[in-house]
Amino acid sequence: MLLIRYPEIQSWAGLLKRPVMQAGDMDMVVGSILQAVQTSRDSALFEYTEKFDKVRLKDLRVSAKEFREADNKVEPGLKEAMATAYRQIETFHRSQLFKTEKIVTSPGVTCWQKAVPIQKVGLYIPGGTAPLFSTVLMLAIPARLAGCEEIILCTPPGNDGKINPAVLYAAGITGVTAVFKIGGAQAIAAMAYGTESVPPVYKIFGPGNQYVTTAKQLVSRHNVAIDMPAGPSELAVVADDTAHAAFVASDLLSQAEHGTDSQVILFTTSERMAGAVQREVGRQLERIPRKKIASASLENSRIFLLKDMDAVIGMVNEYAPEHLIIAAGEAESLAERIINAGSVFIGSYTPESAGDYASGTNHTLPTNGYAKAYNGVNMDDFVKKITFQQITREGLEKLGPTIMKMAVAEELQAHSNAISIRLKKKYD
Amino acid sequence: MLLIRYPEIQSWAGLLKRPVMQAGDMDMVVGSILQAVQTSRDSALFEYTEKFDKVRLKDLRVSAKEFREADNKVEPGLKEAMATAYRQIETFHRSQLFKTEKIVTSPGVTCWQKAVPIQKVGLYIPGGTAPLFSTVLMLAIPARLAGCEEIILCTPPGNDGKINPAVLYAAGITGVTAVFKIGGAQAIAAMAYGTESVPPVYKIFGPGNQYVTTAKQLVSRHNVAIDMPAGPSELAVVADDTAHAAFVASDLLSQAEHGTDSQVILFTTSERMAGAVQREVGRQLERIPRKKIASASLENSRIFLLKDMDAVIGMVNEYAPEHLIIAAGEAESLAERIINAGSVFIGSYTPESAGDYASGTNHTLPTNGYAKAYNGVNMDDFVKKITFQQITREGLEKLGPTIMKMAVAEELQAHSNAISIRLKKKYD
Repeated sequence: MLLIRYPEIQSWAGLLKRPVMQAGDMDMVVGSILQAVQTSRDSALFEYTEKFDKVRLKDLRVSAKEFREADNKVEPGLKEAMATAYRQIETFHRSQLFKTEKIVTSPGVTCWQKAVPIQKVGLYIPGGTAPLFSTVLMLAIPARLAGCEEIILCTPPGNDGKINPAVLYAAGITGVTAVFKIGGAQAIAAMAYGTESVPPVYKIFGPGNQYVTTAKQLVSRHNVAIDMPAGPSELAVVADDTAHAAFVASDLLSQAEHGTDSQVILFTTSERMAGAVQREVGRQLERIPRKKIASASLENSRIFLLKDMDAVIGMVNEYAPEHLIIAAGEAESLAERIINAGSVFIGSYTPESAGDYASGTNHTLPTNGYAKAYNGVNMDDFVKKITFQQITREGLEKLGPTIMKMAVAEELQAHSNAISIRLKKKYD
Repeated sequence: MLLIRYPEIQSWAGLLKRPVMQAGDMDMVVGSILQAVQTSRDSALFEYTEKFDKVRLKDLRVSAKEFREADNKVEPGLKEAMATAYRQIETFHRSQLFKTEKIVTSPGVTCWQKAVPIQKVGLYIPGGTAPLFSTVLMLAIPARLAGCEEIILCTPPGNDGKINPAVLYAAGITGVTAVFKIGGAQAIAAMAYGTESVPPVYKIFGPGNQYVTTAKQLVSRHNVAIDMPAGPSELAVVADDTAHAAFVASDLLSQAEHGTDSQVILFTTSERMAGAVQREVGRQLERIPRKKIASASLENSRIFLLKDMDAVIGMVNEYAPEHLIIAAGEAESLAERIINAGSVFIGSYTPESAGDYASGTNHTLPTNGYAKAYNGVNMDDFVKKITFQQITREGLEKLGPTIMKMAVAEELQAHSNAISIRLKKKYD
C-alpha cells in the first residue's frame, strides 16, 4: 500500500479519484442483448445462457424439486447461521417500516403519505467466484417485509445447469416467489420486459458486473426503476494511534479479497500505525486463499497520513466511501461528523464483515462516490410513499384564494377555475 | 373525449398505453451538448444561450441587483399567496423529517440510520409559456428544510436576458444560494460537471422538456443523482353518479391546459356522468385562455365507462396516474385501495390545483406509469440515510460465529479472519 504523507487539501480530490470505467462499447454490446431479449424472449435467454454460461437448459425456472435438493445439500450449521442473520436483518429493517401520520397543514386541509409496496420486484444475484446468498437475504428480507407481492430472482447457472444450493435455500426461506437461471444483461432484460417464462417487474435490485450495471442503467431509462448504480466495492478505515494494527489489516484484506478492482484506503494520524498496518497486511495476506485477488487490489490502495482528525474527516467526506470503519479514540464523536458514506462501523469490535452478513444493516451500498447523493438499500426502496390530501369545503374556502392567485400568475387560468367553480356554487 | 364502454380486462393495458417518446436522436443531440459544456464550460453556456434563448449574456449568474428588481416587480398579493403556500408546504415536509432511532438487533449490536443532507443540490426550472415559481417552492423548501448547504437553480432567460420576477422572488424567499440564467440540456450539464461560474452538484431535481429529461438521464449514469424520470403530466379522475360534473370537467381542463401532450382520463361507473362531464368540458373549454393547448390534449384523452368500482380501481392501478382525483361516494375507502399513483385527491372539494400549489404535498410526481415504482419528491430525496453500527466485544463474541460461518460458505476467508482475529486475542 502506497503511503502518502500530509497531502495538501487542493490535491485531495485528485488523489481520491476512482479508476474510470469505460462505457462506450459496453452500451452497444448490452443494447443488442436487451434488444434480442425484447424481441425473441425466452429463446434469446436460452441462447445467451448456452453462450455465456455454457449450458443448454430445458427450463429457465428453478423447479420445486431443485429447491428440495438444495435444502438437503445445505449443512445445518449454515442454515442456523442464515436464520440468525435473517433475524438480525429483519429486526433492523422492520424498525424502518413507515408509519402514516396525517398532518393538518391548515384548518380543513389534511395531507399524508402512505407507504405502499412495489408490487413486483426483481433481484439479481451474480454468479462467479462466490455464491452470494447473503445478498439474497439483504434484498429479499426487506422486499418481503415491505409486502411486495411478487419477488423474483435471477442468477446465472453453473455449467451443470444448477444454482448454488445456499442461494436457493436463502431464496426459499425469504419467500422469493420464483428463481430463474439467467445471468448477465439478459437477466436484466428479462425482468424489465418480461418473456414467456419471466414476469416483468417494476424495480430491479442487486449487484453485478459492468454488463449488468449497464443493462440496469439502460432499462431504467424507459421501463423500470433500479436500486442504484453499482461499482467496485470500497472500504476506508480511520485509525489513530490507539487502533489495533492487526484488526485494521484484517479489515483492509476482507475488502481487498472481493475483487481485483476493490479499493481500500487507510486514513491515519499516526505514522507508527501506518507502518504497523502495512507490516500486518503483508503478514496476513500470506494466509488467505484469495491472496492473488487481494494483492492486485492492494496495488491500487493507499494510506494517507494526515496531520489531525479534522483533516481525516475532511478527506473521508471528500472520498465518500461505501464502507467506513472508525478505529480510533472518540470513534463515536468522529462518526457524528461523517456526512458522506454508505455505512459506518464504529469502534474496534465492529468489523465490516459484521455488516456484510449479520449486524442487521443492509450491505447493498453506494460505491464510486455515489454516497454523496445516495444511501444504501433500505425499506424506502421497496415502497412508494403515495401522498394523499383531503380538503373540506371550509378548508378550500380559506386556501382557495392563495391557489387562484398563484395559478393566474403562472398563466394557468383553468387551474384557478377548478377552485372558483367550487367556491361559487354551493353544491354537495 | 372518446368514451370507451366496458372494456374487457385483457384490453386494459393496451388501452392505457401512453404515447411512446422516441429517444434515439435525442441522445446524440443531448450528448454533444453535454460534451461541449464539459470541454468548453462557461463559453459553451454563453454560446448555447445565444443560440437557444436568443440572448447574449454578460453574466450567467443572477446579480443581487436583479433580485432586488424582481422583488419590486412582484405584487404584494402574490407575495402573500406565496407566503401561505410556503407555510403549507413547509408544514407537511417538516413532518417528514427523519428521526434517528437506535435499534439493538441483538445484545451488544446496535444499528441505526441517520439522515444527512445532500450537501449540494441543483434545481432546474423550465422556461416556456408559464413562469413556474411554484416548482421553485416545491423543490427549494424541502432542500432548505433538509439542510442542503448549496442549493443552486438554473432556468432559461427570456430574450431580454432576464428571469421572470416571480421565479427570482421564490428563489429568494426559499434560500436558494445562486440562480443561473441557463436552460435546457446545457443547464443540466453545467450542474453535473461544474464550470467557471456554476458549481457542480450531487443531485439534480426538476421538470423539463425531452432535452432536459434526456440530459438528466445521461448525466445520472456517471456523475450525479437525479430525482426521477419525467414525462408529460397526467390526471385521472374517478367519478360515480354522485360527483359534480362541472367540478370534474374543471379538473380535467386544469390538467389539459398544461401542454398538448398532457393526458386526462375519466373512470366512471355512470353513463349519465360520462355524458354530463363531456358536455361540461365542452362548455368550460370555451372560456379558458389556453383553449388551443387544452383541446389538443383532450384529443388523446379518454373516458372509460366501467361496470363497478372494483373495475375502476383495477384499471386505475393498472394506469398508475401521476394525479388521481376520487370524486365518488366512499371516496376515503376507495382511496385505501389505490396502490399505484403519485398523489391522490380525496373528495369533491380537493381539486388537483390544491396540490399543485398549496395543500402542502409536493407537486413533483412520477408520470408515465413510473408511479408503480417511484413516489413523488419528498424529504427522503434531499438526504442520504447513512447506516451506522456499533458492536461491543461481547456482541461480537455472540454474533461472530454466524458471520464466520457465512463468510466461509461464500468462500471469503478474509471476511472470517476479521472476526477471528478479534475474538482470539484479548486486546484492550
